[in-house]
Amino acid sequence: MPPPYHIKQTSIRDITCGKNVVIVEPANLYECKLGDDCFVGPFTEIQKGVEIGNRTRVQSHSFICELVTIGEDCFVGHGVMFINDTFSSGGPAGGDRSQWKSTQIGNHVSIGSNATILPVSICDGAVIGAGAVVTKDITEKGVYVGNPARKL
Amino acid sequence: MPPPYHIKQTSIRDITCGKNVVIVEPANLYECKLGDDCFVGPFTEIQKGVEIGNRTRVQSHSFICELVTIGEDCFVGHGVMFINDTFSSGGPAGGDRSQWKSTQIGNHVSIGSNATILPVSICDGAVIGAGAVVTKDITEKGVYVGNPARKL
Amino acid sequence: MPPPYHIKQTSIRDITCGKNVVIVEPANLYECKLGDDCFVGPFTEIQKGVEIGNRTRVQSHSFICELVTIGEDCFVGHGVMFINDTFSSGGPAGGDRSQWKSTQIGNHVSIGSNATILPVSICDGAVIGAGAVVTKDITEKGVYVGNPARKL
Repeated sequence: MPPPYHIKQTSIRDITCGKNVVIVEPANLYECKLGDDCFVGPFTEIQKGVEIGNRTRVQSHSFICELVTIGEDCFVGHGVMFINDTFSSGGPAGGDRSQWKSTQIGNHVSIGSNATILPVSICDGAVIGAGAVVTKDITEKGVYVGNPARKL
Repeated sequence: MPPPYHIKQTSIRDITCGKNVVIVEPANLYECKLGDDCFVGPFTEIQKGVEIGNRTRVQSHSFICELVTIGEDCFVGHGVMFINDTFSSGGPAGGDRSQWKSTQIGNHVSIGSNATILPVSICDGAVIGAGAVVTKDITEKGVYVGNPARKL
Repeated sequence: MPPPYHIKQTSIRDITCGKNVVIVEPANLYECKLGDDCFVGPFTEIQKGVEIGNRTRVQSHSFICELVTIGEDCFVGHGVMFINDTFSSGGPAGGDRSQWKSTQIGNHVSIGSNATILPVSICDGAVIGAGAVVTKDITEKGVYVGNPARKL
């Protein structure tokens, strides 16, 4: 008798890559796009439609959801979580993508480990401290820390 | 000569499931109970004795420890960590389960990514923001954010 | 045609262990040193040069980077992230190790789940609360919580 549950496996499938991309498995990447010289550490998930620029590094344990775009020369630390559903109607939007929001990360952005990134825009060159929770757009270069994140 | 350390593997073993449960491996689930139509993402651990209600989704990178009960139609985001040992005696309780505390999550509760849930009760319909650290019981519906989590 | 990206696999390689060490795979451990009776949970990464004392437990989803030393009888909770690069020059130090900083954790230190540990020293017997972000040295025993972490 088969088990009464369905098991899927993480995989790397249907991704588009530039040159010299390195990915450490186990990782769950699908229908996303990585530029040249990108690195993706283990225990990561990158969902469909995500675009990541040249030379950007995504460290272990990070999760990048649909509707996130990340520029070039960025650093996404370990355990960073991106979010596209803000529970704006009091709970998960589920399949209703009209309620999902997008995130744009510029170039040369550094995001510290265990940071949490709500759907926002972050400008070029910004630094997000480890453990920060980014709840608003960041339009000015600087170092942002805390929960919620504020400019140092 | 065998290596001088013992290697174990994550596995899905001795779990009880309702209908249409989907689990993405690698995942470490043992001696827990999942209702109908539950989803459990990759890089998760759910320990023994945990009970999860129908249609509840547990996203990637989350850890649900012993003594946690989660209701129906809940959403547990990515990287959510539950806790049963509050180091109340100044350090880990270790094997002394009399010092562990339990967590009860109601129905229709949504928990944002990277949230941390100390041993508490959370009432039906509550929304826990991404990155929140919940240190006290939540008895009133609403949105709770920050470290420590407070009502918005 | 081979895929245009390079896949690596997590592994346990070139580690030095005391007696009775248990490691749960998948895990990525390399060129580090674990004392007697250590436990390392699944979905963890421990980098080269890390030294961990006897009877210390590293729980699932944690990341311990280069230049971290952890004493005996410590508890590293789930999803704990250590950091050696503080982006002090406005971005990742990359290969320039002269900019990396070290972390020393004493004996009998307990670190709660989802905590983030910048490069600091933490004295014997300190307790770091779940979800705390430790940004400064801790020289006095006590319980430290919040973002940034402060003594309770």
